Order: sequence, then structure tokens, then C-alpha cells
Amino acid sequence: MNERYLEDFAAGQIYGSGRITVEEDRIKSFAAEFDPQPFHLDEDCARRSIFGGLAASGWHTAALTMRLLVESDFKPVGGIIGAGFDEFRWPLPVRPGDELHVESEVLEVRPSKSRPHQKGEVVQVSVGNLVVPRRLA
Amino acid sequence: MNERYLEDFAAGQIYGSGRITVEEDRIKSFAAEFDPQPFHLDEDCARRSIFGGLAASGWHTAALTMRLLVESDFKPVGGIIGAGFDEFRWPLPVRPGDELHVESEVLEVRPSKSRPHQKGEVVQVSVGNLVVPRRLA
Repeated sequence: MNERYLEDFAAGQIYGSGRITVEEDRIKSFAAEFDPQPFHLDEDCARRSIFGGLAASGWHTAALTMRLLVESDFKPVGGIIGAGFDEFRWPLPVRPGDELHVESEVLEVRPSKSRPHQKGEVVQVSVGNLVVPRRLA
Repeated sequence: MNERYLEDFAAGQIYGSGRITVEEDRIKSFAAEFDPQPFHLDEDCARRSIFGGLAASGWHTAALTMRLLVESDFKPVGGIIGAGFDEFRWPLPVRPGDELHVESEVLEVRPSKSRPHQKGEVVQVSVGNLVVPRRLA
């Protein structure tokens, strides 16, 4: 499929992707480098955690999502350049052997009001939601 | 620093992190696996792209952010469990040799209205903003 300009996109367009299987070894090696928490590294620890079993780091899932997008028919000219997200959620953990694919829908096409590059030092800004246990009563 | 329960967190608490330098080789190898676009892989292509030079994948930046958080004094009991983000932006590209650190502030502490695990198949939901060039007039 050819690369697409802004004018080629319209709300409602839907794109699929290929599929990729999440390997247990890569879950652990990704986590060892980027998210070294026991529930991403060790089955026994994971079983006793909120995940109830080994789970991929959400950042591993996000990175695999990007791989699937880049290899899909969704081809903006100049590449897939993400400026950020208005919403980002991981409703379920990804498990070893899970097969992922991506479904994308164009929600809106609008001209940019700002250039994505600014003078400054901040490279990532996020407002996240964490799950933290209460003390036992 | 000890692990903290929900009751130990309060709006306004601030956490820092250590520092990590982003290596050019790892920018390219991360991109080769997860975000194989020319501006993350090759200096010449990157110079001609919107980035104007080699830039790390945003997912590489995000993953390194997690590593810095996990190794910081920010220690919720049970680990750092992200349910998602209300906002997520990359205002500037990360370049080879850049040194990253993370500053976190607790904005609000509130009881969860839902369990993070749901029955279903969707593992990641996001509403993203992409930069797509217009056609030349």
C-alpha cells in the first residue's frame, strides 16, 4: 500500500495488522533490561502477585504494538510519528504465548496547531494511574 | 526506603531517580526489534526526516523511564503497577548520548473503583496523536 498524506486519511478508516506471539524468554529478558520487577521475571513470584502469573511488562506490549503497526498497511508518509496519547490503558496482562494483533481506527483528522518539536529539556510527560494496595485493616 | 502502601502516599510527594545514558547502538537495536523506521536506525535517513537526526523510539524512552522508576525510591508495595495513562506526550526526541532521569509527583490518591483485571481480550487501548505531513500544495 502507498504512503498516505494527511489528506488521504479520514475518520472511520480502519487498519489491521499481522500477528506476533509473545515469547516467555523475551518477556523475561525485556523486563530484566527495562522493568525488572519480580512478576515480569519469575513464575513463582508472579503467581503470588496481583497478576497471578507471569505477565509481560506493559512497555513490552506497547513496543510490540509499535512493531505490528510499522509492519501494517497503515503507512503515513514520513513514518508513524507519535506525539503522544490522550488515553493509554492496559486492561489485561499479556501472558507468555499470547498472540497479539492491533486494530486501529482514524478518529479525527485535524491540522496541527503546533510543531511537535519544542525548545526545552523535557522528553516525556505523562499522567499515569498506578495500582497500590491498601494496608491490611 | 521501605515499600509504601496506599495510605503512605499523599498528593505533592515528589520522587527523583538515578540517571541513564541512551546509547546509540541500543537506540538502533531497540528500533530494529520494535520500531523499525529509518529515523531510528540510520543517521542519514534521520537527518532527512522530521527529527533532523537519529532519535530514539518513544517506546525506548518509555521503557528506560520504567527502568529508572523501578530503581528509584518510589516503592509502592507489590511493585509499580501501571493501569494506564490519562496523558502521555513526547515533546522532544531523545538523541544518542542523552542522559535521562525521571521526576515524579503524586497528583492524587484515591481508592480504586474497579479491579485492574477484567474478563476480555483487549490488552491495550490507546487514543494517540500522530504527526502526518500534508501534501505539498
